[in-house]
Amino acid sequence: MSKEKSFQFEVIKQDKQTRARLGVLTTPHGIIYTPAFLPVGTLATVRTITPEELESLGTQVVLANAYHLYLQPGDQVVKKLGGLHKMMNWKRPIMTDSGGFQVFSLAKLNKITNKGMEFQSHVNGSKHFFTPKKVIEIQENLGADLIMSFDQCAPYPCSKKLAKEAMERTHLWAEDCKKYWEEGNKQFLYGIIQGSTYSDLRKQSAKFIVGLDLPGIAIGGVSVGEPPSKMYEVLDVVEPLLPQDKPRHLLGVGSPLEILGSVSRGMDTFDCVLPTRIARNGAVYTKDGRVNLKNAGFKIDKDPIEKGCQCYACKNYSCGYLRHLLMTNEILGIRLTTLHNLHFILSLMKDIRESIKKDRFEEFKKKFIERYKI
Amino acid sequence: MSKEKSFQFEVIKQDKQTRARLGVLTTPHGIIYTPAFLPVGTLATVRTITPEELESLGTQVVLANAYHLYLQPGDQVVKKLGGLHKMMNWKRPIMTDSGGFQVFSLAKLNKITNKGMEFQSHVNGSKHFFTPKKVIEIQENLGADLIMSFDQCAPYPCSKKLAKEAMERTHLWAEDCKKYWEEGNKQFLYGIIQGSTYSDLRKQSAKFIVGLDLPGIAIGGVSVGEPPSKMYEVLDVVEPLLPQDKPRHLLGVGSPLEILGSVSRGMDTFDCVLPTRIARNGAVYTKDGRVNLKNAGFKIDKDPIEKGCQCYACKNYSCGYLRHLLMTNEILGIRLTTLHNLHFILSLMKDIRESIKKDRFEEFKKKFIERYKI
Repeated sequence: MSKEKSFQFEVIKQDKQTRARLGVLTTPHGIIYTPAFLPVGTLATVRTITPEELESLGTQVVLANAYHLYLQPGDQVVKKLGGLHKMMNWKRPIMTDSGGFQVFSLAKLNKITNKGMEFQSHVNGSKHFFTPKKVIEIQENLGADLIMSFDQCAPYPCSKKLAKEAMERTHLWAEDCKKYWEEGNKQFLYGIIQGSTYSDLRKQSAKFIVGLDLPGIAIGGVSVGEPPSKMYEVLDVVEPLLPQDKPRHLLGVGSPLEILGSVSRGMDTFDCVLPTRIARNGAVYTKDGRVNLKNAGFKIDKDPIEKGCQCYACKNYSCGYLRHLLMTNEILGIRLTTLHNLHFILSLMKDIRESIKKDRFEEFKKKFIERYKI
Repeated sequence: MSKEKSFQFEVIKQDKQTRARLGVLTTPHGIIYTPAFLPVGTLATVRTITPEELESLGTQVVLANAYHLYLQPGDQVVKKLGGLHKMMNWKRPIMTDSGGFQVFSLAKLNKITNKGMEFQSHVNGSKHFFTPKKVIEIQENLGADLIMSFDQCAPYPCSKKLAKEAMERTHLWAEDCKKYWEEGNKQFLYGIIQGSTYSDLRKQSAKFIVGLDLPGIAIGGVSVGEPPSKMYEVLDVVEPLLPQDKPRHLLGVGSPLEILGSVSRGMDTFDCVLPTRIARNGAVYTKDGRVNLKNAGFKIDKDPIEKGCQCYACKNYSCGYLRHLLMTNEILGIRLTTLHNLHFILSLMKDIRESIKKDRFEEFKKKFIERYKI
């Protein structure tokens, strides 16, 4: 029985000054108000944090990585443990990516053909073969609400020849993914647009993926080392070609400034390891920019990371204590910086939604950027 | 102004069949019902856990290590950050040890004389000198409720000559600590009994320390590698020499069976890294004994660690998921095993107190031991 009807996406407001939009994405595990940020829980856990903590931060949806979970504990194991939601005790929506980007960035890629990718695990060197069919199967076993088609990500910089080849393969695989997905069709599938930084390729890819008429549209191959201006060029070329009534996911983007820049270019959802990864290195977001709590200047600082911040870390702990925890590799330290950074980004998303609602997005964005020093 | 009156200890019930006793230790930060277990928060954090989680587990008091905090972030830094309670956001009582055991077990000891210990930090090799005065000063700066006199711990096995020397130095230092402590006298000082496994030395040490008439009495130099039977011999020799109206702390003991054996020999409080340290290796307590969740047998196990267990880990997660988190070094895994093990030990302490209250301690102890396989 198809559960397709459990999914629905609606744009409820289009900003007048920018291409920003307010949306509502309904899934079997609840509603996602967009623009939304997805904390990354690579191995079916957002590192250091419980599901209850994620909920209390206002997390609407998390992203888990199919590649990692296929390797450990195995998608079959996840299925036997009741699927991702049950296993990790997370009741809200989940998105999984297809593994294409992870094979590209983490694994040792042995061979890539139109059939798929042969690679060696970054964990133990074991050999594996991902095909569009396999990647859909894995994501079915994991059981996320939102899933991705298999794609080949091009590096940056990249010759036009390679970019074209990767794009064409991504298109072939998207068609294949659609075919296997239609047999199951219980999940919400995104097709991924590639094409590197070449405007003509990006246009071609956007048209092709839109033509497949999948439920969602994702943009991949950005945030792979190119300057933000290049990414914005890509979005400026692609966005006008996208249908208004489908959600757009921007893969791998998550710095405060790039989120703002991408929301204003019509993107709806974002996933990125950045807020949680930098937290584990001691770096935290403030309205004045990013600071590293390991700096000696925080040694006897009795103040919280940011005065007035309502996160658990700021309400209860001084920078001096946080620095001590970070310097001694105490886990509570990175729990607290993770909580703070997620609170920061999720609050930013809430503020973005509020400002669109009140026709003040452009003003909000300008003020934020003026104050925020990278 | 002396705060000595904020402290009080009372034995409210003496078990008839054993030497177990129920007590109430009142401190400026609240009451400790004994027998009690102190989770260890070496660096002013019980590893992976927040103070709120500790409270919800029923933790009455934690122990922090003076040696570690003197090195990082420095006792002066802790003082500037408002003292241990304020810094770590823990509102209930805290005990610190004196550092004698840590210099013995962790640092490179360069020289030991009646004046004190010269050692090199295990963190960076820097040289330091601990004297009784210094150790009291450090503990004053840290600001715990319950503090320890400076002691020299003898290894196991140990020649009688060395055991005697360490004991005599411990006595000298206890006298010195008393002197410096009397000048401040805002904390509850425990004298430490040493003497290795030699009954005559232990008797001599017990008499000496009791003679100092300090508020509390601690037994050190146990759980340093000797078999439990040897430790029980020590307790059997020492306990009859201790005043009934002072609390007895047994340093470094924390396995379920040794806690039961020591409670029945009249000990009131216990601190130990064991429950939290083994948790970080994937080992968890159950009523049937200790198991390691990394074992392959747990791979697709949908059950919790222990059915009916009311801890957060057992109420929400399967062994299969816990194993996955542990195998991939995900921090949530060791958070959950830490919560479970502390819940187990703190529930055991509660059951022990209940059973003494109801004149059923011996029966409870027997049943627990019969079922529990090490």
